[in-house]
Amino acid sequence: MKLSNNFTKTTKDFPKDETSLNAQLLIKAGFIDKLMAGVYTMLPLGYRVYKKIEQIIREEMNALGGQEMYMPTIQPKANWDLTGRWDEMDVLFKMNLSDVKRQVALGPTHEEVVSPLVKKYINSYKDLPFSVYHIQNKFRNEKRAKSGILRGREFMMKDLYSFHESQNDLDKYYEQVSVAYENVFKRVGIGNETYKTYASGGTFSKYSHEFQTLTDAGEDYIYICDKCRVAINKEILADQKNKCPECGNSELREEKAVEVGNIFKLGNKFSAPFELQYTDESGEKKDVIMGCYGIGLQRLMGTVVEVCNDENSIIWPESVAPFKVHLISIKKNNEAEMIYNDLVESGVEVLYDDREDVGVGAKFADADLIGCPIRLVVSEKTLKEKSVEFKRRDSEEVRNIKIDEIIKEIK
Amino acid sequence: MKLSNNFTKTTKDFPKDETSLNAQLLIKAGFIDKLMAGVYTMLPLGYRVYKKIEQIIREEMNALGGQEMYMPTIQPKANWDLTGRWDEMDVLFKMNLSDVKRQVALGPTHEEVVSPLVKKYINSYKDLPFSVYHIQNKFRNEKRAKSGILRGREFMMKDLYSFHESQNDLDKYYEQVSVAYENVFKRVGIGNETYKTYASGGTFSKYSHEFQTLTDAGEDYIYICDKCRVAINKEILADQKNKCPECGNSELREEKAVEVGNIFKLGNKFSAPFELQYTDESGEKKDVIMGCYGIGLQRLMGTVVEVCNDENSIIWPESVAPFKVHLISIKKNNEAEMIYNDLVESGVEVLYDDREDVGVGAKFADADLIGCPIRLVVSEKTLKEKSVEFKRRDSEEVRNIKIDEIIKEIK
Repeated sequence: MKLSNNFTKTTKDFPKDETSLNAQLLIKAGFIDKLMAGVYTMLPLGYRVYKKIEQIIREEMNALGGQEMYMPTIQPKANWDLTGRWDEMDVLFKMNLSDVKRQVALGPTHEEVVSPLVKKYINSYKDLPFSVYHIQNKFRNEKRAKSGILRGREFMMKDLYSFHESQNDLDKYYEQVSVAYENVFKRVGIGNETYKTYASGGTFSKYSHEFQTLTDAGEDYIYICDKCRVAINKEILADQKNKCPECGNSELREEKAVEVGNIFKLGNKFSAPFELQYTDESGEKKDVIMGCYGIGLQRLMGTVVEVCNDENSIIWPESVAPFKVHLISIKKNNEAEMIYNDLVESGVEVLYDDREDVGVGAKFADADLIGCPIRLVVSEKTLKEKSVEFKRRDSEEVRNIKIDEIIKEIK
Repeated sequence: MKLSNNFTKTTKDFPKDETSLNAQLLIKAGFIDKLMAGVYTMLPLGYRVYKKIEQIIREEMNALGGQEMYMPTIQPKANWDLTGRWDEMDVLFKMNLSDVKRQVALGPTHEEVVSPLVKKYINSYKDLPFSVYHIQNKFRNEKRAKSGILRGREFMMKDLYSFHESQNDLDKYYEQVSVAYENVFKRVGIGNETYKTYASGGTFSKYSHEFQTLTDAGEDYIYICDKCRVAINKEILADQKNKCPECGNSELREEKAVEVGNIFKLGNKFSAPFELQYTDESGEKKDVIMGCYGIGLQRLMGTVVEVCNDENSIIWPESVAPFKVHLISIKKNNEAEMIYNDLVESGVEVLYDDREDVGVGAKFADADLIGCPIRLVVSEKTLKEKSVEFKRRDSEEVRNIKIDEIIKEIK
């Protein structure tokens, strides 16, 4: 893409009420815009990053056999009454329908939709197991929304729901999902900072697990066992007697972290109220056993920003960068244009700064702000040597490479 | 995909309050599920169709230079007060935020977001023209929601917004968008049934245009000039003295139709209240001139169903079919599996009915219900001749083709 065609611009300003680093950097670089607290637009650059994160998650969910669908935001009060969460969940957005005096909720999560939905298709044990997932916007009427895109009133979520005959079958699938989650966090570039963290399992299971990424922006404290490379959340630390649940190690390291995903064994918590049952081989009716597995996509994107940055701005991991290459032309647009076209034809994603009314310093500053992994600069000086200047965003090293070796160098 | 892995099933039933053909067929075939009036889940099969329609629209919008982004659903009351639409628009969903006693709307359209958003990036005439678009769920508090997915309380919309220096520049872009819209309707398979229809232009322009598709399910009447292959909507028929605006022809043919898209010259209707201005070459401040261009994606999907069906169910156009091929195995799963794998490796999208506990008649009925363009049947009889049975969904002709000629035949 040519930067001259991008309608957004970088800026030094951000809204005064924006105290979070992730939103400050993303606003300055033109990735997001703040409409109000906890409510952001994903601008074209930001939406490119979002789409890459989404695709990584989609691939991992498909590999788990998840069937993708799209569920409603508007959800009838009756379904939420049935689970007791209409009154319990204080972040539930509630609205009135105009035709009758019926109330509806805006979905913050979709157990109240997916449970009665799959009930229509499950009769026998032969219909199990399976899993469905969806990636879409969800809503929470948050009292405080001060963490940028880490905690929005409106946010994109991937939720996977799985349905099983037995606890044993759920347990096996749960472990597969856990591995897939680790793949997601590795692939988006925060694998090293992310810990599988023991959390309360609720009424049905001893533990659930959170995936917690170390960053000062986190709202949680976790307690890391370096022997097992797992962690425990604060909530169950006392119950665990300050020991690692895996090896009993009591030398746990406290760190601030943000929860980027969670996996949870629901058991029959939702199948019971919705009478989601199946007939087993002996003809007996039994509750379907469920699991649920969530990842907040903007939260993940914001966490990548919190983890991957320097004093100049964001340093995108290549897998989620809006473009792999940021190509800068210093008054040599014809030559840069040829290099741009060659890269595009080779399938390289390039952001080409072709702006003619912008100075060199501003172009370099923008490249740092936007944070693509590789910066190429074309100038009179480099062209004399049939070269371009090459620099990685995460390195100080600047060197010239021959134009006809660019593809080899960056691939 | 193997049908045994698909969690939904076809059914003969649909909800008693579902009076629309599109929703009845889509529910019976397992493409959608009805949560409440005007609120539907897109099930895995339906979401595949939706995604294909979405991608066709995305390609056409990208070809127009549109920059894709994602805007908030939650929109502050202040923005809607500024345009007067907080009180005017009776379908606006309204909610309360929990922290302060502030009200917000759920976006039914996004002029109140996009106008102040682009204002942050527009200074001079050099920043114009450009266009942005988004594809996402929108909300209308409909009193009656009885047309299946043609008119939802919650629905996916593509809205493109364009920003110009002058009326003349808008006029030129508007014509380009009009062509792109015709491309979209051709590509999804309803080009022949869809008419560019003159409609009221509001205060700023003589005409706007709707794209109306002929079907009895339509809520509109249009008046077709067969000489020009355009139409006029009922609203402006009297103003036009019952004549074609292009050729003056007064022999107009009345037809029922559904509006699948519209394009509209907004002028400064939204730039004025938001003070969305630019500085022209002489240094003078002027209002930005805007256009907006909408397509409802489920409405389009529902219209395709209303147009493309027979007494047995849906006949998907190939471009939006969930799968190109519906492969049926009659007790010869090993052989069918090999054919399935070959097709998948060749990049053909195949729905493979590998179910072992379902009879032949039910398998054939399901193939008709689901409506993929090509049906292949593998049986003992066909295998004796190293063949499969080949039938198009839109034809009665059944013939055998050699297994090693399948790819050639269907590509």
